[in-house]
Amino acid sequence: MRNIRLLIQYDGTRYSGWQSQEHTEQTIQGKLTRVLERMLGESIELQGSGRTDAGVHAAGQVANFHTNAMISCEEMQNMINQYLPKDIAVLKAEEVEGRFHSRLHAIRKTYIYRIWNSSIPNVFERRYLYQVKESLDIERMKRTAGLLCGTHDFRAFCANKRLKKSTVRTLEQIKIEQRGEELSLTFTGNGFLYHMVRILTGTLLEVGMGKREPKEMLRILESKEREQAGVMAPALGLCLLSVEYSKEDSI
Amino acid sequence: MRNIRLLIQYDGTRYSGWQSQEHTEQTIQGKLTRVLERMLGESIELQGSGRTDAGVHAAGQVANFHTNAMISCEEMQNMINQYLPKDIAVLKAEEVEGRFHSRLHAIRKTYIYRIWNSSIPNVFERRYLYQVKESLDIERMKRTAGLLCGTHDFRAFCANKRLKKSTVRTLEQIKIEQRGEELSLTFTGNGFLYHMVRILTGTLLEVGMGKREPKEMLRILESKEREQAGVMAPALGLCLLSVEYSKEDSI
Repeated sequence: MRNIRLLIQYDGTRYSGWQSQEHTEQTIQGKLTRVLERMLGESIELQGSGRTDAGVHAAGQVANFHTNAMISCEEMQNMINQYLPKDIAVLKAEEVEGRFHSRLHAIRKTYIYRIWNSSIPNVFERRYLYQVKESLDIERMKRTAGLLCGTHDFRAFCANKRLKKSTVRTLEQIKIEQRGEELSLTFTGNGFLYHMVRILTGTLLEVGMGKREPKEMLRILESKEREQAGVMAPALGLCLLSVEYSKEDSI
Repeated sequence: MRNIRLLIQYDGTRYSGWQSQEHTEQTIQGKLTRVLERMLGESIELQGSGRTDAGVHAAGQVANFHTNAMISCEEMQNMINQYLPKDIAVLKAEEVEGRFHSRLHAIRKTYIYRIWNSSIPNVFERRYLYQVKESLDIERMKRTAGLLCGTHDFRAFCANKRLKKSTVRTLEQIKIEQRGEELSLTFTGNGFLYHMVRILTGTLLEVGMGKREPKEMLRILESKEREQAGVMAPALGLCLLSVEYSKEDSI
């Protein structure tokens, strides 16, 4: 069987996430699977690099599936984009090694959280920006971000209470950039826990507003208690930018 | 009475234009007027710099109205943005001279038409970009744009058949820029006829696709017949960028 890898972009506004528990809901994975199955005439199992929450976007989600169909990748991509709704697009379709697995082989992910720091709403990008009216101390946020990077047990920044697996992750970088009224927080790491980026962002925003001290971060990490961290930032500002694979699997 | 000028931004997707003939329709002018009247407790007449068609956007529409209310401009702006839907925002509210008229005193307008020249749809800006899959000869389009600039009778590029007023306008510049897969056409002039920018864009696209010769432009202008020009490009790619006023009225 052929193994096909897709590079996918979506505006998550209308969806209840990449994959959801309830089958009645509208999901990105569901939409893509239905279009692919109708196109290929066989049932497929589309494996994403990971879930994205309801309302979260992706500029570079990766997924793969196995098929017996002989259609070329280029033709497949054109057809699928024709049938998909306008808020989902396949940027690339390619045949990869049979053993490639989009979730298990991912070695690094990058998320961006975009904030519109102004009292005036942003009309054109309102679906992708979280508006924060309060003024923010960006330098203070940058200092705090430095304290969060590294290999830590991020349990305090995770919404899932019944975690059996390890909650240790390596957060390589949090890049904070300001361009006009837009502030972006780019998170790169080897893996992220459930809601981790949004809770980190909410906590960093509280530091930026002066509601928390930078030094609290170490205490929060050590506590391993969700209640110690800040509020979760809303989904709409979050976007999965890219998923990286080892050299032989590189996209 | 005070004369208040507003700088307005909107995503025109959901609206039947700035102002429409039928009162049952949803218009930007109508939305703003209702919010202002409820806020000020008096009826007002909101005068826009000009109409925009159904589905057309604005990054810098200008409008003014007269009021007896004593509320400060800053307070007015904050309140109105709070009550407006998320696809309309007031970027600025300021008191101007009593005689200022947003339409009659406008001396120059700039529109941008944005094209996504790719076979892969643009997910995040799909509401603001017209997707053109065919390859385009940009240099040829630029040469043709030069032939259209200047003071001409633009009747052939106007959709309104029962024109009594002059259809002579001065088109100062058509700037064509390519950035990656995005192509933008920026039109600056002292005034634009009904559908003029969209018909100019459609005609320039036909030149870019090789369906028309650049030299045809002079014949089309001379013919003064709508049928001679190209098809009208769709509304979604068009945005009113700015309206300029003489120095004493400058915004």
